[in-house]
Amino acid sequence: MQQENEFTKWYLKTIQDAELMDYTPVRGCITFRPDGYEIWEHIQAAMDQRFKETGHRNAYFPMLIPESFFQKEKDHIEGFSPELPWVTEAAGEPLEERLALRPTSETMIGHLYSKWVKSYRDLPLLLNQWANVFRWEKKTLPFIRTSEFLWQEGHTAHENEEEARQETMQMLAIYKEVVENLLAIPVYDGTKTASERFAGAVDTFSIEAMMKDGKAVQAGTSHYLGTKFAEAFDIKYLNRNNEHHYVHTTSWGTSTRLIGSVIMVHGDEKGLVLPPKIAPTQVVLMPVGPFKKHPEILEKLEEIQQALKVKGIRVKLDDTDQTAGFKFNKWEQKGAALRVELGPRDYQNGQVIVKARDEEDKQTVNLAQLITVIEEELEVMQARLLTKARGFRDAHSHITIDSLAQLQQHIEATPIPGWILAGWCGSADCEQKVKEQTKFTTRNIPFDPPVQKTTCICCEQQAQHTVWFARAY
Amino acid sequence: MQQENEFTKWYLKTIQDAELMDYTPVRGCITFRPDGYEIWEHIQAAMDQRFKETGHRNAYFPMLIPESFFQKEKDHIEGFSPELPWVTEAAGEPLEERLALRPTSETMIGHLYSKWVKSYRDLPLLLNQWANVFRWEKKTLPFIRTSEFLWQEGHTAHENEEEARQETMQMLAIYKEVVENLLAIPVYDGTKTASERFAGAVDTFSIEAMMKDGKAVQAGTSHYLGTKFAEAFDIKYLNRNNEHHYVHTTSWGTSTRLIGSVIMVHGDEKGLVLPPKIAPTQVVLMPVGPFKKHPEILEKLEEIQQALKVKGIRVKLDDTDQTAGFKFNKWEQKGAALRVELGPRDYQNGQVIVKARDEEDKQTVNLAQLITVIEEELEVMQARLLTKARGFRDAHSHITIDSLAQLQQHIEATPIPGWILAGWCGSADCEQKVKEQTKFTTRNIPFDPPVQKTTCICCEQQAQHTVWFARAY
Repeated sequence: MQQENEFTKWYLKTIQDAELMDYTPVRGCITFRPDGYEIWEHIQAAMDQRFKETGHRNAYFPMLIPESFFQKEKDHIEGFSPELPWVTEAAGEPLEERLALRPTSETMIGHLYSKWVKSYRDLPLLLNQWANVFRWEKKTLPFIRTSEFLWQEGHTAHENEEEARQETMQMLAIYKEVVENLLAIPVYDGTKTASERFAGAVDTFSIEAMMKDGKAVQAGTSHYLGTKFAEAFDIKYLNRNNEHHYVHTTSWGTSTRLIGSVIMVHGDEKGLVLPPKIAPTQVVLMPVGPFKKHPEILEKLEEIQQALKVKGIRVKLDDTDQTAGFKFNKWEQKGAALRVELGPRDYQNGQVIVKARDEEDKQTVNLAQLITVIEEELEVMQARLLTKARGFRDAHSHITIDSLAQLQQHIEATPIPGWILAGWCGSADCEQKVKEQTKFTTRNIPFDPPVQKTTCICCEQQAQHTVWFARAY
Repeated sequence: MQQENEFTKWYLKTIQDAELMDYTPVRGCITFRPDGYEIWEHIQAAMDQRFKETGHRNAYFPMLIPESFFQKEKDHIEGFSPELPWVTEAAGEPLEERLALRPTSETMIGHLYSKWVKSYRDLPLLLNQWANVFRWEKKTLPFIRTSEFLWQEGHTAHENEEEARQETMQMLAIYKEVVENLLAIPVYDGTKTASERFAGAVDTFSIEAMMKDGKAVQAGTSHYLGTKFAEAFDIKYLNRNNEHHYVHTTSWGTSTRLIGSVIMVHGDEKGLVLPPKIAPTQVVLMPVGPFKKHPEILEKLEEIQQALKVKGIRVKLDDTDQTAGFKFNKWEQKGAALRVELGPRDYQNGQVIVKARDEEDKQTVNLAQLITVIEEELEVMQARLLTKARGFRDAHSHITIDSLAQLQQHIEATPIPGWILAGWCGSADCEQKVKEQTKFTTRNIPFDPPVQKTTCICCEQQAQHTVWFARAY
């Protein structure tokens, strides 16, 4: 798993063995099979709850966007036009104007907000959309980068910069909390450099996660758009002094690439390792030994299954005819969080065997305490995965590399080069040079870096920023 | 509201005044504003829960479908090809094969099921998808018929016809239960005639609802597809005797047209009337009189708001500066289910005024009992709306019209001709003749008609079926 290619091979095999996805005949478009989609449903539920608690409401905007809309914000069209698929005909006739499949909805929403926002009383306008989006990219990787993917995009409008920036930060904080607490993925939050900014944003902020091959995934972004889209789409409001002003807008998104991230952060050579909070199967119950001769074993497991269901725990009972070894493999591949084994001898002794997916050791548990132990173990495992992931990340984060030569040496010497925290003078040339020579790009300027750097890794002049550099998906 | 045009005008004004939707520059594509989308979220939650309780899981399939897939089932392509939008270019290059925006997903899912289904152990395969779909229709009406809409489509595969037919009926029964209990819309369930069948189905079953202009809306459909798609996409399984057989498939769907239906069934001249179970605002609290001079009024309302929120009731407090009359109108337009008014005198007397959206009378309620009364009133109103809708439907359902001449006379004499239950000989010619002469089409052959008919309304020969005829959306 240490070479990039091996890691990718492992990833592709793992998500297929676990039946999370399948390929389709449409280039770069995957299908989300039930276990893959269910991980997304858990992410959705957690995000949606927090969006609503912070005053946002869901809406739905058209998927097709007229070409002329894209022309209105020049950075936006430059950023997205190379990736757009176009509808050019419908119902047997050519269209007068091409319609893009949305890559993101700032333009359509800008158009509508200009109709809906009249006065400060209409602000803040806090909407979110759950939707499919399209970016026709050359290189694709299931979940991480696909032609069609699922996401949420929040779009808000505010009276002034201060409120819009507060919103931008609030949503980034929600992303960080969900990704850490639900997906057990530690992230660094920070500011994107200009070259990595969303097309049309004044400022882009991100949370960045480290995969097990040391590469970074941008796990969520939140943008302060200033008045750029307000000017492009004429979104003005009458303020308390009866003056017309442009609104300040934000947008923020997370996508199904989080599914890919959770697999690349926690998975191992046996298959998926999923944090219990999102695991489609939190507990798999398995009779072992000659259980068909002892009907009381299946009866007991059915009783346990019922008791766990009542607790809201996602449980499966595997009473198929396959061998125990086959079943162990299968549920390890699929990332069932806990396995409970019950055989004739254990039954006689009033006990079961419990094994957590991410640990080697099994434990023997008294049947009378099983439900309580399972509840505790699920919580402990959730916390443990975050700790393990943080340990891995910190072990592969390097904070003492301060020149390009050092970085190149480090890359050659280390199978997983990971991330490096380095100073940057702020010039696009230096950023570009680092990228060309090492494939390391700026991930973000962390709000809370482990240390502050004083010299630029490239020109070795005074640093303006302390930046995470990494190879990225 | 008695002329078709007036009713449509009323409908279009009502959904815009209530801020359920807005038009967009893309032909036939609307935007779902928060209150409109929230109605859909409540429908989704109820449906999704029942789908999962009956063993279905959600998945997501690509939106783009290769043209060649449509060619594989000839009835299917004939039915859908006139309405398809096509992606012909992406990322600056023409595509080798046109890709349709899905109008429904039988073809893509058929392709994938042929990969996933190998043995009887893989059956039944019970999946559902929540998605956007496209049908580029000439005449559109917001929510009811739009170029893009949201829906769920269930797709299942079974070992044999019996199981597949049971599934088809089970899902139709779930639709009926949700539409009656959640949306308070009474429906007739029954079989579609051949001319109204889903393109590619062996049998289509529907639930049909009557709008306030007497027209019908097909509120949900469930299809037994036989082995047609299995043959087209080669979906075979090895049965218990080690023989290869085609699976029997079903599909079933409900869509955002349910939002339009609930408005056209319950709305009135003041605006929306929404069943409490789906109303975005179940209770609106309103201070009346000179409440700014009496801060205890707003304090009390805030206390009530908090108590209702704890109960899970969707409540809003309107403490804006507008006049009481303005606020009454606004919340009537938006269909808040209950209005609670509190003024200085009522406050002194320890009481509030409660008014249900669909009733004329207000009631005075002791403050100490308010929460209990609100919970009860919401339930009573939910039931009352179903009773009212059933009364309207039955009053406009005619079961004694047995000839075309009678039907024509009835249509001329009655501002809301409604539905007629009539015999039908089973010939497509008779069905077509009724349609041409009266615009009445067959809605369905109800499973449980009020009476059985013996002669065909058109040819007056012996009837094969007793059928609901109506004008339909």
